[in-house]
Amino acid sequence: MNTDISQKLKDFFAEHLPITQFMGLEVESYDGEQLVLTAPLGPNINDKQTAFGGSLYNAAVMACWGFAYLKTQEKGLVCNQVVTAGDVKYIAPVTGKIRAVCESPGDDIMASFLDHFGRKGRAKISLEAIITTDGEPDSKVAVVFSGQYAILSE
Amino acid sequence: MNTDISQKLKDFFAEHLPITQFMGLEVESYDGEQLVLTAPLGPNINDKQTAFGGSLYNAAVMACWGFAYLKTQEKGLVCNQVVTAGDVKYIAPVTGKIRAVCESPGDDIMASFLDHFGRKGRAKISLEAIITTDGEPDSKVAVVFSGQYAILSE
Repeated sequence: MNTDISQKLKDFFAEHLPITQFMGLEVESYDGEQLVLTAPLGPNINDKQTAFGGSLYNAAVMACWGFAYLKTQEKGLVCNQVVTAGDVKYIAPVTGKIRAVCESPGDDIMASFLDHFGRKGRAKISLEAIITTDGEPDSKVAVVFSGQYAILSE
Repeated sequence: MNTDISQKLKDFFAEHLPITQFMGLEVESYDGEQLVLTAPLGPNINDKQTAFGGSLYNAAVMACWGFAYLKTQEKGLVCNQVVTAGDVKYIAPVTGKIRAVCESPGDDIMASFLDHFGRKGRAKISLEAIITTDGEPDSKVAVVFSGQYAILSE
């Protein structure tokens, strides 16, 4: 894990997003190609003793947000980053740890995103995240998320 | 406000969804045609001192969930209710109280939803919620949410 960089995301959560602290949202790993966030079931539980749909959304939206954030941090960019849209499909209940995985959409798309910001002072990107049923990477996919993100000059 | 019925939703939040308690999610009003949920900015804030996108989603998804839930409670139905998909567009920042409003999709659609459940033991419905920029009903719309919900025999 790229500890120096991923620490920036942990610090961001702790400093700026109190709800992530209640959720127990943690950075499990970041290797430049994939960001993994986790949260325990306890604070995120619903009436069926499975994960609340809102917490699943939050973990997914922040996995993608965090991936884009860490990419801008790697490049030393100073920008505001916002989510402009989110779309989530709930396919199966999540009965264990929430583990949201955002994979890079590919080097070309990431390069185009960062290059566009350099030229125009703004850029947008679509990112996806998945969550499996129990926090195990090879388990059935329970949640599919797609989000639209924008970065803007400050 | 239909106090007896809306109390059921307050009780549900308190008993089953710990994250709603952290958010400070409250039932402002329910009149059979419209459910309004509110949450203060404090626990739901982000780095820009506006409402976190995940909290906006949570308030909206629960306004629609709660509207369907109260309709089933009014009818005395015993069922499981789940969200199967959510779609959110963030149009402008929310700088004050989060106030999520779900309006009835109309008497015909509600009647068809409840009738289908009575005949088949399952039914689905699409519901929408909006959030304005500062919690005032007449302010600019900041968030538009659409969710898919299903009820199933227990």
